Amino acid sequence: MLNTLIVGASGYTGAELALYLNRHPQMNITALMVSAQSVDAGKLISDLHPQLKGIIDIPVKPLTDAEEAAKGVDVVFLATDHKVSHDLAPIFLAAGCTVFDLSGAFRVQDAEFYRRYYGFEHQHTDWLAKAVYGLAEWRAESVKQAQLIAVPGCYPTAAQLALKPLLDAQLLNSAQWPVINAVSGVSGAGRKASLTSSFCEVSLQPYGIFNHRHEPEISTHLGTPVIFTPHLGNFARGILETITCRLQPGVTQQDVAEAYHNAYHDKPLVRLYDKGVPALKSVVGLPFCDIGFAVDGEHLIVVATEDNLLKGAAAQAVQCMNIRFGFPETQSLI
Amino acid sequence: MLNTLIVGASGYTGAELALYLNRHPQMNITALMVSAQSVDAGKLISDLHPQLKGIIDIPVKPLTDAEEAAKGVDVVFLATDHKVSHDLAPIFLAAGCTVFDLSGAFRVQDAEFYRRYYGFEHQHTDWLAKAVYGLAEWRAESVKQAQLIAVPGCYPTAAQLALKPLLDAQLLNSAQWPVINAVSGVSGAGRKASLTSSFCEVSLQPYGIFNHRHEPEISTHLGTPVIFTPHLGNFARGILETITCRLQPGVTQQDVAEAYHNAYHDKPLVRLYDKGVPALKSVVGLPFCDIGFAVDGEHLIVVATEDNLLKGAAAQAVQCMNIRFGFPETQSLI
Amino acid sequence: MLNTLIVGASGYTGAELALYLNRHPQMNITALMVSAQSVDAGKLISDLHPQLKGIIDIPVKPLTDAEEAAKGVDVVFLATDHKVSHDLAPIFLAAGCTVFDLSGAFRVQDAEFYRRYYGFEHQHTDWLAKAVYGLAEWRAESVKQAQLIAVPGCYPTAAQLALKPLLDAQLLNSAQWPVINAVSGVSGAGRKASLTSSFCEVSLQPYGIFNHRHEPEISTHLGTPVIFTPHLGNFARGILETITCRLQPGVTQQDVAEAYHNAYHDKPLVRLYDKGVPALKSVVGLPFCDIGFAVDGEHLIVVATEDNLLKGAAAQAVQCMNIRFGFPETQSLI
Amino acid sequence: MLNTLIVGASGYTGAELALYLNRHPQMNITALMVSAQSVDAGKLISDLHPQLKGIIDIPVKPLTDAEEAAKGVDVVFLATDHKVSHDLAPIFLAAGCTVFDLSGAFRVQDAEFYRRYYGFEHQHTDWLAKAVYGLAEWRAESVKQAQLIAVPGCYPTAAQLALKPLLDAQLLNSAQWPVINAVSGVSGAGRKASLTSSFCEVSLQPYGIFNHRHEPEISTHLGTPVIFTPHLGNFARGILETITCRLQPGVTQQDVAEAYHNAYHDKPLVRLYDKGVPALKSVVGLPFCDIGFAVDGEHLIVVATEDNLLKGAAAQAVQCMNIRFGFPETQSLI
Repeated sequence: MLNTLIVGASGYTGAELALYLNRHPQMNITALMVSAQSVDAGKLISDLHPQLKGIIDIPVKPLTDAEEAAKGVDVVFLATDHKVSHDLAPIFLAAGCTVFDLSGAFRVQDAEFYRRYYGFEHQHTDWLAKAVYGLAEWRAESVKQAQLIAVPGCYPTAAQLALKPLLDAQLLNSAQWPVINAVSGVSGAGRKASLTSSFCEVSLQPYGIFNHRHEPEISTHLGTPVIFTPHLGNFARGILETITCRLQPGVTQQDVAEAYHNAYHDKPLVRLYDKGVPALKSVVGLPFCDIGFAVDGEHLIVVATEDNLLKGAAAQAVQCMNIRFGFPETQSLI
Repeated sequence: MLNTLIVGASGYTGAELALYLNRHPQMNITALMVSAQSVDAGKLISDLHPQLKGIIDIPVKPLTDAEEAAKGVDVVFLATDHKVSHDLAPIFLAAGCTVFDLSGAFRVQDAEFYRRYYGFEHQHTDWLAKAVYGLAEWRAESVKQAQLIAVPGCYPTAAQLALKPLLDAQLLNSAQWPVINAVSGVSGAGRKASLTSSFCEVSLQPYGIFNHRHEPEISTHLGTPVIFTPHLGNFARGILETITCRLQPGVTQQDVAEAYHNAYHDKPLVRLYDKGVPALKSVVGLPFCDIGFAVDGEHLIVVATEDNLLKGAAAQAVQCMNIRFGFPETQSLI
Repeated sequence: MLNTLIVGASGYTGAELALYLNRHPQMNITALMVSAQSVDAGKLISDLHPQLKGIIDIPVKPLTDAEEAAKGVDVVFLATDHKVSHDLAPIFLAAGCTVFDLSGAFRVQDAEFYRRYYGFEHQHTDWLAKAVYGLAEWRAESVKQAQLIAVPGCYPTAAQLALKPLLDAQLLNSAQWPVINAVSGVSGAGRKASLTSSFCEVSLQPYGIFNHRHEPEISTHLGTPVIFTPHLGNFARGILETITCRLQPGVTQQDVAEAYHNAYHDKPLVRLYDKGVPALKSVVGLPFCDIGFAVDGEHLIVVATEDNLLKGAAAQAVQCMNIRFGFPETQSLI
Repeated sequence: MLNTLIVGASGYTGAELALYLNRHPQMNITALMVSAQSVDAGKLISDLHPQLKGIIDIPVKPLTDAEEAAKGVDVVFLATDHKVSHDLAPIFLAAGCTVFDLSGAFRVQDAEFYRRYYGFEHQHTDWLAKAVYGLAEWRAESVKQAQLIAVPGCYPTAAQLALKPLLDAQLLNSAQWPVINAVSGVSGAGRKASLTSSFCEVSLQPYGIFNHRHEPEISTHLGTPVIFTPHLGNFARGILETITCRLQPGVTQQDVAEAYHNAYHDKPLVRLYDKGVPALKSVVGLPFCDIGFAVDGEHLIVVATEDNLLKGAAAQAVQCMNIRFGFPETQSLI
């Protein structure tokens, strides 16, 4: 049994982590925590997230002293703001914990990236260099060795799972950047009061055009530029990405199908569509990334979907944890 | 032409008022205003409410001096918080303006009501005594004489339009209180950041059970106690009320139909259903209150719907204004 | 291991049953079936319900011969239309199967009820007499002995779980019928093309006023008349019931709390709220019925929620099956 | 006063047409009609669309004889299926009526197009040649002369309004096809029973990839190929199109802004965003097409929104009619 601590348990991702880890036969939740200032400190997790009532009825405690909190803990999940993760992770790591960070604080090994996109100066470039990017289907061997796993962002997970097999098989025409149109549910903005997320204000609309922080995360890890246009959708959960690519001359539908098959036929959390493309609802509440595609001449359209809180956050974190500690990859996820 | 001022133009009701008054042939909008502290002060109304773009593109100005603002103004609409209306109305009234207050500040002639339900001590009991409650279909004669019209709350409008004809015709068995189950869209909570109104948190649920401030507004003006249970619904606009009543022995479906016919056959903003009951969507965006009912023995179920921002707020305010100044009752509304 | 057959697997409830039984350690799904005429016959369950992809990828077979289909089967779940269940159940029963019928075909022991509310003449009054009504928290002892379990309707489950403890403890004033206002998600209408269920037509509205078939199901099993007003809500899943009752003089909040505690403190699928009342979203996707209440003088308002496809259908069926065969009551449900 | 007839009045577009024409000071609705077989024949338009109650309460009559129906009629609006329009339009035209066809039957002057995308052989190539494509902002001069106006499809209207100014000003790099990602509300599928449009089945998903009939309509009229990927969205009304283009080297944000300004500064139904891009909700219920854009190096993203039933159908039809008969362009629309 591994003792585990979830920091940021009051948020939507934190609640999903709590649910997964609570049912995991090798995990023992030692505490659910929130930042010391949080208005939620001291409340039952099941008062914050009533769906957990009768399942997990423990309080979320204020994190006042990370060193103290780390005692006796094997595994820490940070479902916290980027800056908070940046500050906390090194303390837990120094205490010997394995850390799964769901924020953006250790995803890109370039300090300038944090200055520009996250608004803070990265102080832990040593850990930044050691962090493993936990795109689970592609980085399993590295994850097994890592002490700090930077779980990918929600948009980047689907985008990379969709594009990596094509790039690795050199099917794409590099003269034309892939165009990623993505629509995310409102839960992607987190559990907090804001006019933008308020029920009457939400409607389908693009945001962060040409300057969303997930664009460099995607292009850096793919090694190729992309055009990434995120949209807010009028639903609570899920991401659907429609990706338009130019194929190399002569590449066929069969070539694309093979690239995906080779990449994912033995990966339980990626579901490939033989025909058609996925709809959003088929992944909501589930830990999968679904991928389908269509080819017309040199044009390729790939559609990838996931639950932003699950394969885009909590499920991928637990998947990485399963890989890291040698548990079955989908333990407690399906 | 009457010069008119809207205070609280940044909110959902304010935007609807602006739209109605902008197209009104006898009204001239002299200014749209918000409280001096508002973050919206100085912005274009069409930046706050982009649906107004190309229709009304004027700025909302900060209200710093009500006396000054009142100069040259004939009619003021207050779409402001209760306490703000309470403070502002007397200033505009003293300046000779006719005031249509859409808040709760002058709806019930009982100072204790404000202490308990609104959390402030009413300082203007003189105006409270003079204010006319603008339930337009029932108070037209008084409205015509009034300088201060307290436009009814959203829930109370539908509830009273549904129940008043039955009570006046003495069809209800007073031994059993009418049970009013009401579901309102989220816009009823106003345009502001709040966790409760956030997209991911909203789902159908009752609130304010046995202690919502609209219960005494309803029962005071009806002169009979009611059980009122409001619910938040997962939609932006509209109210649907399902009202269960006990009839006096011997009262028939025909008696109920006649009571409604007598009350509303010449009222253009109440639409009676001959058969069946209304659905919410049929009134959204429209200034009507729709009413249908069914009788089974001594049991009566009445269903009343309205757009909470229109017949429950802006449309009724304009309807009262039309009545007050002798314009056609539905001018600019249909 | 019990061999199990699901008939009606193409519907929403059928898909939920397949998911529960697929993960049940004592159950072996021998086949998923649909009626022989269904357009879905021969398709993969995961093509009909893509969320099952990678979890259950077997075809739904046409049921052409029930006697043949019964061979080697221990347990049959009928998620079929009322008349289809009525016709099929006796065949499976005669073959020795234990049958969990999720339709209305065996819920009320009164042939006239079927004539009036379901439009057919009941031909199997012998089985009607033997059928046990599977309101799991209340009929466990009978369920353990039964060969035919009539799983309650979605609305009646929540209504009875809310009212039965109050009636048994004689807390309610019988002079006034409980008023049940219920709102159900659209999935309650089943998976089929219909204008009423079409996205653009759905909006909050009452239906079946004074004549819904679930009213006699509720009142018969409770032994007391009720006023039941169902509504269609603009969401896919879930039921919220707001029940207004008159208490006997002198009955207190504490008396009500005790009645619920006594009834459900040891029932894992009923979650009682100590304070406040449940919201719809907290039960969607979960097998619980949540209950909260408020008292004001002699007036009591109870709010009960459930997922109509789960505690209102599939989960309760599996719960009854667990009880029937001595498995842990919540096996595979939580 | 022009006498006008609406055929297909039972659909969503028909209802919007009825509303616009009913309030038009120069139009007299002589009849609302549906096909003779329609189950809606004989019903009140306000029973089919209860929002019209109290506004237009006339029956929709079965169209049994188009020649007869044409008598005394000046203007016909066909909000009918493509094949029905194809059959009816020539009859009304022969009778001297001016016809505004909202179907696809006369939009593209290529008979092969109908064979492939609409599944019928076009029999009226004479009228096809004479029909004017009613993209109002661009074809006003032709519309003024036309007897048959083929009102553009919903997706093509927004796509062309967004792209035409850029193409005309030669700002786009033709080596890379514009990528049009479009999301439409469910009302685009019409008012009918279908599993695809059913509330529980709808969720964000692409459809018609590489083979939607609106792709050739767009590319033919623009004179350039495009990649068009339509999506079904989980909302009733509205279209949002996100269009990714490659600019010619050296083209600036200012060039793009000027192209739009030149095209639309005097067009009342196109609203240009100086900064930012439009959200869907700002056009729902309104007759506008909203356009905003962003430039990054050689990359351009344009966002165009409209209400698919209004600027994408009924409002544009009425706009064309206003242009055709010399009424103010926005008469009855704003």
